[in-house]
Amino acid sequence: MEAIRFSNQTLYLLDQTALPQEEVWRAYTRYQDVKNAISTMVVRGAPAIGITAAYAVVLAAHQYASDTWELFVSQMSQAISDLNAARPTAVNLSWALERMKRLLFSPKEETLVLDALLEEAIAIHNEDIQMNQRMGAFGADVVPENAGILTHCNAGALATGGYGTALGVIRAAHKQGRVSMVYADETRPLLQGARLTAYELQKDNIPVTVLTDNMAGAMMAAGKIQMVVLGCDRMAANGDFANKIGTYSLAILAQYHGIPFYTALPVSTIDFSIEDGSQIIIEERDGNEVLNFFGVQTTPVGVLTCNPAFDVTPHHLLTGIITDQGVLYPPFDRHIAALSRR
Amino acid sequence: MEAIRFSNQTLYLLDQTALPQEEVWRAYTRYQDVKNAISTMVVRGAPAIGITAAYAVVLAAHQYASDTWELFVSQMSQAISDLNAARPTAVNLSWALERMKRLLFSPKEETLVLDALLEEAIAIHNEDIQMNQRMGAFGADVVPENAGILTHCNAGALATGGYGTALGVIRAAHKQGRVSMVYADETRPLLQGARLTAYELQKDNIPVTVLTDNMAGAMMAAGKIQMVVLGCDRMAANGDFANKIGTYSLAILAQYHGIPFYTALPVSTIDFSIEDGSQIIIEERDGNEVLNFFGVQTTPVGVLTCNPAFDVTPHHLLTGIITDQGVLYPPFDRHIAALSRR
Repeated sequence: MEAIRFSNQTLYLLDQTALPQEEVWRAYTRYQDVKNAISTMVVRGAPAIGITAAYAVVLAAHQYASDTWELFVSQMSQAISDLNAARPTAVNLSWALERMKRLLFSPKEETLVLDALLEEAIAIHNEDIQMNQRMGAFGADVVPENAGILTHCNAGALATGGYGTALGVIRAAHKQGRVSMVYADETRPLLQGARLTAYELQKDNIPVTVLTDNMAGAMMAAGKIQMVVLGCDRMAANGDFANKIGTYSLAILAQYHGIPFYTALPVSTIDFSIEDGSQIIIEERDGNEVLNFFGVQTTPVGVLTCNPAFDVTPHHLLTGIITDQGVLYPPFDRHIAALSRR
Repeated sequence: MEAIRFSNQTLYLLDQTALPQEEVWRAYTRYQDVKNAISTMVVRGAPAIGITAAYAVVLAAHQYASDTWELFVSQMSQAISDLNAARPTAVNLSWALERMKRLLFSPKEETLVLDALLEEAIAIHNEDIQMNQRMGAFGADVVPENAGILTHCNAGALATGGYGTALGVIRAAHKQGRVSMVYADETRPLLQGARLTAYELQKDNIPVTVLTDNMAGAMMAAGKIQMVVLGCDRMAANGDFANKIGTYSLAILAQYHGIPFYTALPVSTIDFSIEDGSQIIIEERDGNEVLNFFGVQTTPVGVLTCNPAFDVTPHHLLTGIITDQGVLYPPFDRHIAALSRR
């Protein structure tokens, strides 16, 4: 399964706001529209956002290719800055844009840049899939036999270049016959678990049970959950990490029940520049996402709400960090510092 | 605010499935329809279910009043047994039916029974409101100054004869100026928090912020919550208690953050016949409540789910139990045994 394609100078995104009811591919030729697609979560998931932004830089370069070099550079700087502001929390966005920028602003000849930019975006995309597959292989080793696995939000093929981070681990473990059931939190407000994780796993014939977010503790107490694995939007150098709102609660519940708790992420999701989770910017999204459900208002008019898209889980609640370079255990700061940053 | 009225041999229920969009009162003259109203949650909340069932016994007595005494007794036994099966977890249902039964099956004369039955149902209703007000007075004393209070589901006027258990405590504390904000979990799948708690508190001008269920941990970590208070559907003799799914998770999160965690309940919600929470029957409701949202399917077709309406919180996670006879602290079993059962 994949949600991002590029051909004939056009970026195609599987519209994740319409799943699972409709499978609609949307076509983009202007980076501004791609920025909007990221903001409105047509595409979401930290690695997928990075890949999409890389392709958007390719589109921008085509948009401005006929300008003078000076104008081209200034417009591309603006485009990259716009794209970088599409969503604040996932670090893969700025990581991918940084890679594109390095290539963009040190060229000899303009046509060379266009080809090289596309090659770089494709490389970012392909490397992500390969990283997911390595993560899956490393991660499958830590999945207990006959495991009930709880996951949150969607850290799957739809959230990445393909295969998935947390769902990549689940896919690999399922192939080895270790997974008895995947429990997917529906993940309010935008229901990425109910809509996307259930959709992906069902397509792959992996057994999946959708839970409301408030069932996790009871399912753990009932002995249904042997492992929690979920994704990551940004990890600090000490292992603290931001992920979809609700992750922090799950980490506490897992610790209380003695259940191993893992996050799975490519090294591109680690922000080596920040020491701990307190420095991660948490995106506050429109409160109407909470007060509405498929366009129907759930609350009386005028009620207050808040809508942090993510929360920060401190590293001490993590059993391990599944990366494409292996599974890390405490002390996380030392093992993170030892990772190859390529 | 009230959701249950009785006049002219007719029971009126404010339809809680239609709130807050519509305020619709439904009229009932047959106990069978009341049973259905309880099962489908037109009326819900442990005390409210008990009161409603008491009035339903009055309706049944009118339905069968012209039968021979022998037939009357047999049909009333059937009616009570039917009503008792409407929902399995809340003990107030069987508690109220037991009170009506005692009166029903020891009469001298049939007309006397009809009047006496109505008086008893009204007494159950009025006593509940008085118990809530006493609970409010006792509970307000344990609310910290300037408190952010988290509650779950709806344990308010709508869930009781009026005033509310947990929301009664909040109402009383708010009157004393102690409440800075009430945080209401939306409470999936049926959104009693978003729909009913927000509706009640807004009507009383008590500030309320609606959260998705997965935000609780992050809000606690952010220092927004100084107390958790919520309702109870059945409490065992040791203080273990069943309440809306998600309560158990909140109890663990509160303990982790050192936040006081209370349940508020009338003594009629205590099942003195069971030793601990393992003996509480948990209602499993239709999975479509989880897979749908206001009639829209959220998941792909064919996905598995489960839908336990309640979970059980062990007493050791409770700071205190707010009852109409005072606030109980550990050891709960001894203090529960010392309560007056009337």
